[in-house]
Amino acid sequence: MNRDQGKKKITIYDTTLRDGAQGEGIHFSTQDKLSYVNRIEDMGNLYVEAGWPGANPRDEEFFQQCTKLQSPLVNIVAFGSTCKVSEPPDKSDILLKLLASGAKTIAIFGKSWDLHVRDVLRTTLEENLRIIRESVAFLLQQGREVFFDAEHFFDGFKENPEYALKCIAAALEGGAKTIVLCDTNGGSLPEEIAAGVSAVKQELSPQELGIHVHNDRGLAVANSLIAVESGVTQIQGTWNGFGERCGNANLSTLIPLLQLTGKYEVVSDAALLKITPFSRYVAELTNAPFDEKQPFVGRSAFAHKAGMHVDAILKNQRTFEHMDPADVGNERRILISDQAGKANILERLCRFESDMRKDDPRVEIAMNEIKELEHSGFQFEAAEGSLDLLLLRSLGKLTTPMFEVLDYHVWSDPLRGELDSVAVVKVKVGEETVQIASEGNGPVNALDTGLRQALAKFFPILEESELVNYKVRVLDGAHGTEAIVRVIIDTRLGNDVWGTIGVSKNILRASAQALLDAINWTIWMGRDASH
Amino acid sequence: MNRDQGKKKITIYDTTLRDGAQGEGIHFSTQDKLSYVNRIEDMGNLYVEAGWPGANPRDEEFFQQCTKLQSPLVNIVAFGSTCKVSEPPDKSDILLKLLASGAKTIAIFGKSWDLHVRDVLRTTLEENLRIIRESVAFLLQQGREVFFDAEHFFDGFKENPEYALKCIAAALEGGAKTIVLCDTNGGSLPEEIAAGVSAVKQELSPQELGIHVHNDRGLAVANSLIAVESGVTQIQGTWNGFGERCGNANLSTLIPLLQLTGKYEVVSDAALLKITPFSRYVAELTNAPFDEKQPFVGRSAFAHKAGMHVDAILKNQRTFEHMDPADVGNERRILISDQAGKANILERLCRFESDMRKDDPRVEIAMNEIKELEHSGFQFEAAEGSLDLLLLRSLGKLTTPMFEVLDYHVWSDPLRGELDSVAVVKVKVGEETVQIASEGNGPVNALDTGLRQALAKFFPILEESELVNYKVRVLDGAHGTEAIVRVIIDTRLGNDVWGTIGVSKNILRASAQALLDAINWTIWMGRDASH
Repeated sequence: MNRDQGKKKITIYDTTLRDGAQGEGIHFSTQDKLSYVNRIEDMGNLYVEAGWPGANPRDEEFFQQCTKLQSPLVNIVAFGSTCKVSEPPDKSDILLKLLASGAKTIAIFGKSWDLHVRDVLRTTLEENLRIIRESVAFLLQQGREVFFDAEHFFDGFKENPEYALKCIAAALEGGAKTIVLCDTNGGSLPEEIAAGVSAVKQELSPQELGIHVHNDRGLAVANSLIAVESGVTQIQGTWNGFGERCGNANLSTLIPLLQLTGKYEVVSDAALLKITPFSRYVAELTNAPFDEKQPFVGRSAFAHKAGMHVDAILKNQRTFEHMDPADVGNERRILISDQAGKANILERLCRFESDMRKDDPRVEIAMNEIKELEHSGFQFEAAEGSLDLLLLRSLGKLTTPMFEVLDYHVWSDPLRGELDSVAVVKVKVGEETVQIASEGNGPVNALDTGLRQALAKFFPILEESELVNYKVRVLDGAHGTEAIVRVIIDTRLGNDVWGTIGVSKNILRASAQALLDAINWTIWMGRDASH
Repeated sequence: MNRDQGKKKITIYDTTLRDGAQGEGIHFSTQDKLSYVNRIEDMGNLYVEAGWPGANPRDEEFFQQCTKLQSPLVNIVAFGSTCKVSEPPDKSDILLKLLASGAKTIAIFGKSWDLHVRDVLRTTLEENLRIIRESVAFLLQQGREVFFDAEHFFDGFKENPEYALKCIAAALEGGAKTIVLCDTNGGSLPEEIAAGVSAVKQELSPQELGIHVHNDRGLAVANSLIAVESGVTQIQGTWNGFGERCGNANLSTLIPLLQLTGKYEVVSDAALLKITPFSRYVAELTNAPFDEKQPFVGRSAFAHKAGMHVDAILKNQRTFEHMDPADVGNERRILISDQAGKANILERLCRFESDMRKDDPRVEIAMNEIKELEHSGFQFEAAEGSLDLLLLRSLGKLTTPMFEVLDYHVWSDPLRGELDSVAVVKVKVGEETVQIASEGNGPVNALDTGLRQALAKFFPILEESELVNYKVRVLDGAHGTEAIVRVIIDTRLGNDVWGTIGVSKNILRASAQALLDAINWTIWMGRDASH
């Protein structure tokens, strides 16, 4: 990439598929990894540490199938350790498998903390230096680019700085050009990171330094930042901060952060726009919960709740936003909640009636209804379809129900087979009554199918929409009241996806409520030609 | 608290109930807040900013009902703003309501960024100084302790440092002893925080400085840390980092972090032990998702997955842990996953057969079965009941099923009333067959009740256990396969709670699987006298 206006180029080293996969609940299949290395081209030129062929048969399978191994844009890296104690490198199964993977770049980690050499490797300090030096040299002789990861470097530097530096020196003697300093246990403070990085720079002058930290004290991003400020030019991390224990440095945060300082060139502006969708893609790929409070990319990152904040934002965006959300592919949201001021409600009502004024009595009526429902378990932030239906009713645009559900029953014989449930649904549209029986996979699916089938002849748009997500939350009955169930359904129509909500003590009733809102909203969206 | 061995005392200012409540999806009822101020005594002496009486009728209700307003341990603070532009303080509705709340300590915020004075308040720079100075003075005259929050201070200091300092000076002229510097938009870097704090200290020498930052760039904890290192002695934040947009500085992280440096006295060691349960309590109180990757208090914080890490940890705890989890009331967990090495599985098997060895063939059999199930959607990390049943079977301790479910059907008439579902369950125990019909609130509740009723006559322990949580996750069918449903149930027996899991394309079948595991596990726990 270009040296833009004197900015320093920072290289991204993405270890989501390797270190990220060590996080609790994180899992990538071979197919996931292959999909990932295609999709990551959105981010431009970077390294992707894709796995440990040798430790994990599924990773060997990946390297065999990966067609991107010669790609100029995405550098796929094979990860592993030095050869074993007392072993020559050319007899090391680990190193031979790394070579066999076909990856042009290989990253190997070695111990740089004497405690690990003694208690885990159970060998001498000298032997550890030997295996580092010789493993690096061997891989280089085979024509690979070699990165050396100094595992536990900062703990090692704190307890035995001389030895920690010797380990780096051994890698350099072996011919390594890039040294990655690791805060493997995640316990270092920023000043300790700066001290370690500076010492390596001054004493040993490696060609390139990388930083790899963990978030056990909530400082992974700050530690990566100070490392860069101390001379590191390669940042290692994972999208969404996935990883062992508290995770790795979060690339979804670190990349925009560094870019925003104005001092570093990390990705192109075009790639920065994709940070939000890409981060979400990674979470969906591995079915992990997505932290919506995440800086830059979370759904809440630019979501404003307090009435005073909303009021100010609408006057001048800089008053409560540190940057323009669009630059990272995110968007501002004005939340409707029990803390909503009239400004919040008005902003949303204006989508349906553009000349609406703050003192219109319908604003206060809508606000009070929302606060009351929120109080009883509704959460409109995740169910904008239900919210908009409520607002349309308060505007008087939906006074006549489009249909009526007269009755419904569901029964299930789960041992029968896949289509084990039957729903019988009776609806009325205008003067006409329709009763339908439909099968489904489980009671909710049967009910959803039944309602749609019954109503589709009157509202054909229902055939174009589909239920794409179904979330159930049991809200604790700890306050002496019975537990209630909150169901949120996501429906897709064309390119749009929106949520609807149902709240009840009964999972079927809650599901029905959310389904009916989804149907009503779909019908409304279908009627309104401007959508 | 004592000045312990030259450590600097740091005061906690907890704004969970006020700023935390501005986070998306966060909500505290009056009852929640009253419960909170009782429970927070676990943390020792601190300030609790409980709400804005005046802006929020529910907050007025809280201050009226709060019996802790005169507590020596927990200082309840009422929060609000300065009086309005062109308004004398003694006519200010805002200030009068703050006084009427009865809180001994009042925190008011005022603008310290000229942009806000111009664009939001729409007044002169001088008038803003007046309302700061006079509001502080007025509240002090009424005998309250007054904290002044310099809103947007660091942005103000960057763009117009002279004016930002004038705003602080105005508060000091009014008589304020504690000045809180706020990074309200969350966009400041650590060096900017240090610069702002140092300037205020040097130029104005306030008696006490507080720091209040937001996490929009992932630096809230690091910024609070550097502020303390620059001379701040009051840290403001929220438990679990709840709050507007990306949240406030996370007290669950910041308190242990500061304590671990050895330089600061923040809480007693006894209080530190309660940090993990207290953080969870706060999330449960408000029904918010709990980030299990959180430093110190998350379930994953000391969870080890990679086989090599587990192997090392069992040799020496320091190899992969930055501290002892017990010190913060947390615990180490060895994860079982597809990345589990034999060490992970062995550690858990040893709970049932203490002299088991790593080369026992049953270890590998168990490991392979787990990896296969994980691959098809199971997640044993959240379902240790199901995991242990699998391990018991692999050890040959559960070869004969304790019962058999021959058949089950469920039907629901949701419009009928609360007990709208009926389950018919047929089970066989030994030679005896039992068929039962039971009512329930929704199909899963009916099924749960039916299974327990049918089996309780054979296994009375089932009457002592109860289902306490029920989570459903639909796993995306995006890979061209149909979506599957994962159900996790938490069951309580006495003081223990554990999870069981079911995976199926059908919500009832998945629920039944999890319920049956819960029942099997309860029966096992009841049989084994040593539990």
